[in-house]
Amino acid sequence: MAKKDLTTSISMIKPGKILIRGYDLIDLMGHTSFGDMIYLLFAGELPQKNEGKMIEAILVCSAEHGMATPSTNIVRSAVSGGVPLQAAVASAIIGLGDFHGGAVEGCAEMLQKHISLAREKGFESAALEVVTSYREAKKRIMGYGHGIHQPEDPRKVRLFRLAEQYSLPSAHMKLAGAIETTLKNVLGNPLPLNVDGAVGAIISDLGLDWRFGKAFFYLGRGAGLTTHAYEYMVNERPMRRVYTWDEVNYIGPEERKYQQP
Amino acid sequence: MAKKDLTTSISMIKPGKILIRGYDLIDLMGHTSFGDMIYLLFAGELPQKNEGKMIEAILVCSAEHGMATPSTNIVRSAVSGGVPLQAAVASAIIGLGDFHGGAVEGCAEMLQKHISLAREKGFESAALEVVTSYREAKKRIMGYGHGIHQPEDPRKVRLFRLAEQYSLPSAHMKLAGAIETTLKNVLGNPLPLNVDGAVGAIISDLGLDWRFGKAFFYLGRGAGLTTHAYEYMVNERPMRRVYTWDEVNYIGPEERKYQQP
Amino acid sequence: MAKKDLTTSISMIKPGKILIRGYDLIDLMGHTSFGDMIYLLFAGELPQKNEGKMIEAILVCSAEHGMATPSTNIVRSAVSGGVPLQAAVASAIIGLGDFHGGAVEGCAEMLQKHISLAREKGFESAALEVVTSYREAKKRIMGYGHGIHQPEDPRKVRLFRLAEQYSLPSAHMKLAGAIETTLKNVLGNPLPLNVDGAVGAIISDLGLDWRFGKAFFYLGRGAGLTTHAYEYMVNERPMRRVYTWDEVNYIGPEERKYQQP
Amino acid sequence: MAKKDLTTSISMIKPGKILIRGYDLIDLMGHTSFGDMIYLLFAGELPQKNEGKMIEAILVCSAEHGMATPSTNIVRSAVSGGVPLQAAVASAIIGLGDFHGGAVEGCAEMLQKHISLAREKGFESAALEVVTSYREAKKRIMGYGHGIHQPEDPRKVRLFRLAEQYSLPSAHMKLAGAIETTLKNVLGNPLPLNVDGAVGAIISDLGLDWRFGKAFFYLGRGAGLTTHAYEYMVNERPMRRVYTWDEVNYIGPEERKYQQP
Repeated sequence: MAKKDLTTSISMIKPGKILIRGYDLIDLMGHTSFGDMIYLLFAGELPQKNEGKMIEAILVCSAEHGMATPSTNIVRSAVSGGVPLQAAVASAIIGLGDFHGGAVEGCAEMLQKHISLAREKGFESAALEVVTSYREAKKRIMGYGHGIHQPEDPRKVRLFRLAEQYSLPSAHMKLAGAIETTLKNVLGNPLPLNVDGAVGAIISDLGLDWRFGKAFFYLGRGAGLTTHAYEYMVNERPMRRVYTWDEVNYIGPEERKYQQP
Repeated sequence: MAKKDLTTSISMIKPGKILIRGYDLIDLMGHTSFGDMIYLLFAGELPQKNEGKMIEAILVCSAEHGMATPSTNIVRSAVSGGVPLQAAVASAIIGLGDFHGGAVEGCAEMLQKHISLAREKGFESAALEVVTSYREAKKRIMGYGHGIHQPEDPRKVRLFRLAEQYSLPSAHMKLAGAIETTLKNVLGNPLPLNVDGAVGAIISDLGLDWRFGKAFFYLGRGAGLTTHAYEYMVNERPMRRVYTWDEVNYIGPEERKYQQP
Repeated sequence: MAKKDLTTSISMIKPGKILIRGYDLIDLMGHTSFGDMIYLLFAGELPQKNEGKMIEAILVCSAEHGMATPSTNIVRSAVSGGVPLQAAVASAIIGLGDFHGGAVEGCAEMLQKHISLAREKGFESAALEVVTSYREAKKRIMGYGHGIHQPEDPRKVRLFRLAEQYSLPSAHMKLAGAIETTLKNVLGNPLPLNVDGAVGAIISDLGLDWRFGKAFFYLGRGAGLTTHAYEYMVNERPMRRVYTWDEVNYIGPEERKYQQP
Repeated sequence: MAKKDLTTSISMIKPGKILIRGYDLIDLMGHTSFGDMIYLLFAGELPQKNEGKMIEAILVCSAEHGMATPSTNIVRSAVSGGVPLQAAVASAIIGLGDFHGGAVEGCAEMLQKHISLAREKGFESAALEVVTSYREAKKRIMGYGHGIHQPEDPRKVRLFRLAEQYSLPSAHMKLAGAIETTLKNVLGNPLPLNVDGAVGAIISDLGLDWRFGKAFFYLGRGAGLTTHAYEYMVNERPMRRVYTWDEVNYIGPEERKYQQP
């Protein structure tokens, strides 16, 4: 049985030459941002407008969320056991599962599957159809509600404002908003779109497949997890007892104003 | 025995408020690049000059290096077994060990441990001392030589040029260069600084602890690994036989010229 | 809001005392096999009959399956990158996903969900109902067919014989067999129960929840993966090129007869 | 450059046939314990005496140690984020690093490197030489002392008694004991061999390379970690707040007496 050759269209490597989607890596370095590079890798083409800027804002947004998360707990526990940095961070990234950032993927999938319905029948009736069918199937609509940030997640608000400012397409964001309104009407209580849902809507408007959803969380959060690993290494003893996040004393800088350079 | 409270100075989270090193995350989004954010997290302060741009160039540089690496092989094998995206990418990040990108850390450590010697006795004699002591201890000097990119790794050349263009401090890069010269003299053959060594030198000149070294590799490479995971998911069958990289057919775009926008 | 205390019923640790499900660990050591211990942990009680022996046979069965698997490829690639043993093996265990041993869980779930139907309506008509409903829903029935071991997986045959010899309950095995017969009739071709399906049926007859399914694979395979990691460490260079399994030369002992002691 | 073929001596797989170190897997199933199988895989030959029984006792010993460990914390955190069982357990296995079970490897390495010295110069003077040289190099002797089990780890006592009962060789255990005595004399306080050190000594007396050390911990502990993952899945909500182990209520069976069947 002849074996089918494996193919790739991502990159080609030769001595002294690294082509990424056809572009020489050396030309990309210094000219494209990491956000542009992610877009090039995922979409296969360089951004035409502000896609890279939007991705950078998402990565900044995802980079850190304190001790109150399972993944921060994992990375600190792993470092306490004496493992190399990349392995500790990887062990925490594993934990970014369906309930911990997974709603980016879940919400993006839902939006991408119903966007043509919305274009056909209007956003309001598409939203009603989505909410009704999920409730009948007893399936959870992902990307709505947040345990800590109430009534509204400030990151969601900021992300949507930036998307507008960057003149990105907005159909998926619009559908996400229509579902938010419908949920409020149906439930009698607000269950606002959260940061995961917002990222899911935006990457859909960037034209990216929902299967990339979790990446926008772990590529950013990797930076925060690394910082926690480092802080533990430098400050704590091996095999330290585990503490809950409400026992944690924040000893960093007081709130200070960001000044644009 | 009273238990010592756990402390952190990375971030503080309250309902509706996320402070990163004292700055409101909402202000950072859209204003700081992901490179700036990494610098803020790792160094505790916002970049004063071009540190964030340099980090972005490093992330772009690290993002992808084709099928010829163990980690690409891991991520594709893991996806072939049917695991979620974040777990597949994490399994590959584990593999970015001491021999696979680990030289960033190893080279940065060596440079940071000998920079005061270089400032005291001059770079040439410090380089000679380093090379001699490593050879006597039969320890490998990390960050020199490359299996594929010979005689010189083009990424190293580009990174150093960008560091100059961004007016970054350069003492560690200078020491890395002096060691390169010494190695050539001692060995009789060139063993040029490679991309890992170059990144190790540059993050040292950015004032970052060598323990962060591997992060500059895995934070970038995570993007390429994600793309391979996605390409496999979309194109291949589960549990595919493993192929070697020289059996791989590149079917992406022909080489094309990057045009600055 | 008062926080609900976390509870566990697995073990209790005090200085000098380790209770597992109420038993002193020191009494278990040397008296119970690892198979018994797994049963005690998973089921909460010590085995009454041969449950532990059956689990030992499953672990032996799962321990190793050569180079022709994604997970072996992962563990060797990870070691080649220079990572600690436990991290390399963990990276391979991640890869034991839904398509690579996951059928133990999938098959056990299906059998446990339909066993009462079989007891009610008879095994043949239950089997027909299962096969029909899966085919209508275009869902794959997991645990049938094998890429290499045809026409029949010898491990499945041996496991079922041992289960009989150990006088274990057999209802789930019987249902698995009825589904095998139905599949053959419906498809016109045999699609025999494979080793994953056999393990799924047996652990169901041991009274264990299907959610434990994958554990019977990774707890055993961990031993084989460790051996591959070790063999690579001792024999190969770092960052070795990847080889396909049909390029592998087996240089171990010729086939030799097992003699019972 | 011709490529060197990859070789293995672990197993050979053909349709319908699985040879492990030359033995047909089907013959091993039901006849050899999992402990025997591990010995066959690691050492290349079947046990001649009670090696497999000793390994089973080690696996039972390692299987579970409650909530008070970083790895239990990791596995429960990972499950709380919504990841598959094998990935959650793998994320915890990563955390079994140099400070968390790693002393098995560290102690075995030390003993294997000095056993010929002990045979030459006597165990007491070898022990003194080891302790002195480690103290001069400010290196920690691994496998001595325990945070919870004082004055003595009951698992160590039991393991050594079983090793004697199984008539295993004992030179490495003897050297470990001589080092214990020397440490007490030199430090003025007892720092007794702990369970990791005991396992390290025993696997050395089994003739196994110290590089296998961590495996004897993670192959056993995998069972306990799986049980914690399952308990969490069944009892707790996603993304639960983290609790410290002293807030945990044990609600399992009261202490009960193990009765040999």
